[in-house]
Amino acid sequence: MANITKKVSWSSRGDESGGGERTPLLNGSEEIRITRQLSGDGGMFHIGRLSTVDLEEDLTSEEDTVRGCPKEIPHNEKLLSLKFESLDYDNSENQLFLEEERRMSFMGFRCLEISRWVVCGLIGFLTGLIACCIDIAVENLAGVKYFVVKQNIEKFTEVGGLSISLILWAVLNSAFVMVGAVIVAFFEPGAAGSGIPQIKCYLNGVKIPRVVRLKTLVVKVFGVICSVAGGLAVGKEGPMIHSGAVVAAGVSQGRSTSLKKDFKIFEYFRRDTEKRDFVSAGAAAGVSAAFGAPVGGVLFSLEEGASFWNQMLTWRIFFASMISTFTLNFFLSIYNKKPGELSSPGLINFGRFESESVAYNIYEIPLFIVMGAIGGLLGALFNILNYWLTIFRIRYVHRPCLQVMEAMLVAAVTATVSFTMIYFSNDCQPLRPDQSEDYPLQLFCADGQYNSMATAFFNTPERSVRSLFHNPPGSYNPLTLSVFTLTYFLLACWTYGLTVSAGVFIPSLLIGAAWGRLFGILLASITPNGSIWAVPGKYALIGAAAQLGGIVRMTLSLTVIMVEATGNVTYGLPIMLVLMTAKIVGDYFVEGLYDIHIKLQSVPFLHWEAPATSHWLTAREVMSAPVTCFKRIEKVGTIVDVLSNTSTNHNGFPVVVPVAASDDPGKICGLILRSQIIVLLKHKVFVELARSRLTQRKLQLKDFRDAYPRFPPIQSIHVSQDERECMMDLTEFMNPTPYTVPQETSLFLVCLSCSELWVSDTWWWWTMRTGLWVW
Amino acid sequence: MANITKKVSWSSRGDESGGGERTPLLNGSEEIRITRQLSGDGGMFHIGRLSTVDLEEDLTSEEDTVRGCPKEIPHNEKLLSLKFESLDYDNSENQLFLEEERRMSFMGFRCLEISRWVVCGLIGFLTGLIACCIDIAVENLAGVKYFVVKQNIEKFTEVGGLSISLILWAVLNSAFVMVGAVIVAFFEPGAAGSGIPQIKCYLNGVKIPRVVRLKTLVVKVFGVICSVAGGLAVGKEGPMIHSGAVVAAGVSQGRSTSLKKDFKIFEYFRRDTEKRDFVSAGAAAGVSAAFGAPVGGVLFSLEEGASFWNQMLTWRIFFASMISTFTLNFFLSIYNKKPGELSSPGLINFGRFESESVAYNIYEIPLFIVMGAIGGLLGALFNILNYWLTIFRIRYVHRPCLQVMEAMLVAAVTATVSFTMIYFSNDCQPLRPDQSEDYPLQLFCADGQYNSMATAFFNTPERSVRSLFHNPPGSYNPLTLSVFTLTYFLLACWTYGLTVSAGVFIPSLLIGAAWGRLFGILLASITPNGSIWAVPGKYALIGAAAQLGGIVRMTLSLTVIMVEATGNVTYGLPIMLVLMTAKIVGDYFVEGLYDIHIKLQSVPFLHWEAPATSHWLTAREVMSAPVTCFKRIEKVGTIVDVLSNTSTNHNGFPVVVPVAASDDPGKICGLILRSQIIVLLKHKVFVELARSRLTQRKLQLKDFRDAYPRFPPIQSIHVSQDERECMMDLTEFMNPTPYTVPQETSLFLVCLSCSELWVSDTWWWWTMRTGLWVW
Repeated sequence: MANITKKVSWSSRGDESGGGERTPLLNGSEEIRITRQLSGDGGMFHIGRLSTVDLEEDLTSEEDTVRGCPKEIPHNEKLLSLKFESLDYDNSENQLFLEEERRMSFMGFRCLEISRWVVCGLIGFLTGLIACCIDIAVENLAGVKYFVVKQNIEKFTEVGGLSISLILWAVLNSAFVMVGAVIVAFFEPGAAGSGIPQIKCYLNGVKIPRVVRLKTLVVKVFGVICSVAGGLAVGKEGPMIHSGAVVAAGVSQGRSTSLKKDFKIFEYFRRDTEKRDFVSAGAAAGVSAAFGAPVGGVLFSLEEGASFWNQMLTWRIFFASMISTFTLNFFLSIYNKKPGELSSPGLINFGRFESESVAYNIYEIPLFIVMGAIGGLLGALFNILNYWLTIFRIRYVHRPCLQVMEAMLVAAVTATVSFTMIYFSNDCQPLRPDQSEDYPLQLFCADGQYNSMATAFFNTPERSVRSLFHNPPGSYNPLTLSVFTLTYFLLACWTYGLTVSAGVFIPSLLIGAAWGRLFGILLASITPNGSIWAVPGKYALIGAAAQLGGIVRMTLSLTVIMVEATGNVTYGLPIMLVLMTAKIVGDYFVEGLYDIHIKLQSVPFLHWEAPATSHWLTAREVMSAPVTCFKRIEKVGTIVDVLSNTSTNHNGFPVVVPVAASDDPGKICGLILRSQIIVLLKHKVFVELARSRLTQRKLQLKDFRDAYPRFPPIQSIHVSQDERECMMDLTEFMNPTPYTVPQETSLFLVCLSCSELWVSDTWWWWTMRTGLWVW
Repeated sequence: MANITKKVSWSSRGDESGGGERTPLLNGSEEIRITRQLSGDGGMFHIGRLSTVDLEEDLTSEEDTVRGCPKEIPHNEKLLSLKFESLDYDNSENQLFLEEERRMSFMGFRCLEISRWVVCGLIGFLTGLIACCIDIAVENLAGVKYFVVKQNIEKFTEVGGLSISLILWAVLNSAFVMVGAVIVAFFEPGAAGSGIPQIKCYLNGVKIPRVVRLKTLVVKVFGVICSVAGGLAVGKEGPMIHSGAVVAAGVSQGRSTSLKKDFKIFEYFRRDTEKRDFVSAGAAAGVSAAFGAPVGGVLFSLEEGASFWNQMLTWRIFFASMISTFTLNFFLSIYNKKPGELSSPGLINFGRFESESVAYNIYEIPLFIVMGAIGGLLGALFNILNYWLTIFRIRYVHRPCLQVMEAMLVAAVTATVSFTMIYFSNDCQPLRPDQSEDYPLQLFCADGQYNSMATAFFNTPERSVRSLFHNPPGSYNPLTLSVFTLTYFLLACWTYGLTVSAGVFIPSLLIGAAWGRLFGILLASITPNGSIWAVPGKYALIGAAAQLGGIVRMTLSLTVIMVEATGNVTYGLPIMLVLMTAKIVGDYFVEGLYDIHIKLQSVPFLHWEAPATSHWLTAREVMSAPVTCFKRIEKVGTIVDVLSNTSTNHNGFPVVVPVAASDDPGKICGLILRSQIIVLLKHKVFVELARSRLTQRKLQLKDFRDAYPRFPPIQSIHVSQDERECMMDLTEFMNPTPYTVPQETSLFLVCLSCSELWVSDTWWWWTMRTGLWVW
């Protein structure tokens, strides 16, 4: 992923030069210097340097070396980059805001509530539409490709010279992937990968640059079409989640900054708090469209993003999800010329699992748990391999043209490997009339038969998964499945992290379905009697769940997604047990794939649970210091200097009232954000100009909203020498009621408050990041 | 419900005497007297009287009179009773606690985590087992009853004198119900009703007395068996949720206070925070067992209770739910002599809806929405009627023997009405071999036919629902259904709120299924062609959802519960739309049934959303005042006096450090709970005794845990005159880091913080209830 590359290499550069961003890890209290910037020793503000905090327990870093991470790579994932700002999830209830709220009538609030529903409906609709477009484009492009290659193979099977077919296939794949990789690498690196780690971070409160822009969406959509049509071992489901989130962020703002088009609607929603809510809905709508799983989508949003469960919000998210799956379903039904028959709720359709044919029995549960453990092991292996590969990419493959070439190489290799596998496979299966393979390759099989390996390789991954789930017993022989599992595992692992827009869900499901089916076949062969064992499709499903769980480590939401995708609640318990086992086993070795990539980006991700031993640390010890404060009425020069100071690039500043007694550091009376100060400076809201401002109009909330979300940097604001001597009155604009904690509060409680308050806010690391103030 | 009766009448008494608990409603700022108990005018503590706050907007009370509530009844539901304490959901991180945490090893935390999982597993298992026992008991008792009555009816159909059968039926019903009502009314009034309002309150942070006691569980289980077997229009599903919660509260504490048995395990969990988590799991397990809906259970817990979404907790709740439905399934499969065939995941089984036979088409969606609106209207009517009835009961039926007589009367009337309906019905249907009515009554039908009305009335409600869903088209004629709907609606409305242990889910479903099926039949008759219209079972399902949604107004969780109970995700969208419509339409008229009953109990329930206009009020204006503070080292006499003062029965007290300057009210340095002080007084932890305490052992967290949750009242603690002169040092025991908000914080933000922090805490109304402190 390009953005990973850049960030971490940039962070490494800082490392080499020994300055800049490289800040010490926190080792106990060794590094904490409690100095006081403000005079006196009153307990209010405690000061040190901005510190990048390592919150892992020692145990983990020991384990890390045991796991054999390459020593020469600096532990980038242990550093938290200062490059990321946090979103302002704490609503600034300043005087302007309160005045506006008080002016608003009861009807106004009701209209607002209705427009929230309308926005959610729109989000769902547009997300469903995008999913529909992607699906149709992929189907058609891949259809043309497979048709051409199939024709070619059939021609050359008889006359010899199949290497030409191979070249044709490889070239077609590479061409598609090249287009996809070029637009990602050169136009919008943020569109690389599945986008799920980025959305997780966004919902967690970290402002990942460019993650919810229109350009990202466009590149993402075209990128994913190219990479899936290009035959890579990828899925189009992950990117849907990102797409949904971008749609949500765009629609809810009622304007596009990129297109310079402002519809003058939904202006109330132009702040991080509201936007976050809609982005949650968008992510849910994406999941819903991808898997036909509206409830799963809601749970995904909650599990990955929300820490605060708001009933109305949840209900709106659910509404967006439902509309999304319904829209997709409706348009696909029209496309499939069966209008109104709502049978394709998601991009991936697991097909109907009829409960009668594939019921499970209680004595199969231990087997499922074993499969969960296998999934956990294989998932951990996948993640470790991908971790090494990503580090390699960060170090050596960070130029866009190299990235494009790597993607093309992978595409060509995928085609070659697939072709070789099909070529050397002699697993011929009779072509049954009841089963409709889309591209049955006869190759060297007898007439009326088809090559079984080709159903797995010569197909879009979604169709391959469905074949593995539903083809009747005997469709695959064990050797085919083992070879397929192995090669596809390696291919998928190599592919994830390429500079293309693509997801890891489908490859994981496919690997799991393959070995799961193999497991089922082997079971059937070692047990003498058993109609119950004769359904390898069931084991394919459990294997798919286990493998996916082992890689991404999602829990409740994944269970529900799988259940909804199968359309059958019977498998709830086995899937839950399998995912739980896979998570426990996998977590023993290494984190989930998304978390690994988040760490490699050095994103200061705030985890759900505080470290168990965090009762030992207090807020005072982990807070960012020195705290830089402003007075209620502050000199413009001072403000500009503080904002321009790159070594303390805070985004929020406490406003204090100095106390007469010299031993008191001052009493906190508010919090002002960098973005607010920028707007004030831009509009030159200085005390000295207040007289002339009588003729000017008063600054309103609208001015802040118009500037949102792309506030200009301080460097772009010109302040003359005269103006530097002016004073600014922050009283009206600051948030007079910021969240605070006493300085002796344990880190545990701070973490708890942060996740509960969902106030990832404006200033850095614990106290900054979270918007909690230490008093 | 007995407990409603008592509380509200008690509150009315206070009203009449003009004193005691009757405290003024908040009208703007008229009633708020800001006086200062502590000397000086520094902004720290603001003081007034404990006020009972009316948070409804004016609009609502206007609407209320429009809705025609009887004028003579005082608006009890507008008062918040001071009788209820709140749970201490804010963890007191005092020195004792921190010392314990620091002593605990990493392994200790891991063991704790494992024991949490074990407890959840146990909760699930026991809840499932209880559900299984209830099911088997009800089936057998009802089976015997219906067998006897059927024999009798068959005997007398030929010879005449069916009035004897009627009397037999009515007497049998009344006998069962009498037993159920007697144990509830005389032994444990808290076990009345479904228990869902109580559990909602508990999870919301209100300590409802006796709600999670063992005795309540026992009475609840026997009560529900009696009332269902007694043929009342009730279900056994609601009480399962309460049962699950009680099981959870019991198991997680590792002891039974009632049985005086302490297993010396899970001592760490003996505080409100941990207990709440387990109770959430228990409620979810209850839902899961009741409906075979583990995901629905999790969502129920979250929607009704949790405001904070914790990933690990949610996963544990899900685990408990899964174990619960699995246990029920497993034991029922053994009972049904098909061990291992896991086909009965819940108490109510909607039967299999096969997607092929009952697919819906897009043009049916408007029809579903119309049904949702009907459901909302009927639900609102139900709730209004039940509201009047409950107020009647509160005023006139509050003596236990009257309550038992009313219950018996309802049972007899139910039997009489049912019998009359069956008697006068001439809807005879042919007895098909493929359909297995359990008690087909032939009555006056020809041989080989059965009375169709009897399938609805002469059956347990669960079976009636299933028949309405699945009996083939033509099994019911429209007249039967209309009459049935009307009578059952009135019966169910009369029944809910009786002093018996019973739920409203199944009656609601049954009413809805009846009119839904009727709707389907009418549709089929007015449309000429239509295989799609020929499935009235589909409309019965939608009608059931609409009616239930209209009565209880649950949203996401109910959608998922319905989907899981039907075992088919196809109906997700229609059910969601229907529930949403029902909620919107119903909310226009009146609140949900549970909310009505919570209000009638005057419980200070903290709603999800702050009133939209709450930006207008500040914390200062709604806080409880005067604030009663203690000094770090306080005289025992003062403490005892404050605690004994009934007019300020706070449960938490700020601890302040006086500031030298006389104009400062003091600096808050902690918060101490009434319960903690009680323990300190009991152990006589006085400064003067510290010398002798060197020989004594030091007070530990264990002493607080042993006293939890039944702390003795202050009156039971004897403090001698000498001891009154001693001093107590609170430093070690107080929570040094309570949550605080500035006094000018808007009510909106206070509400937000409260629900997000899930800190319903210790002191009264906003500032007290929520544990947020005003500075």
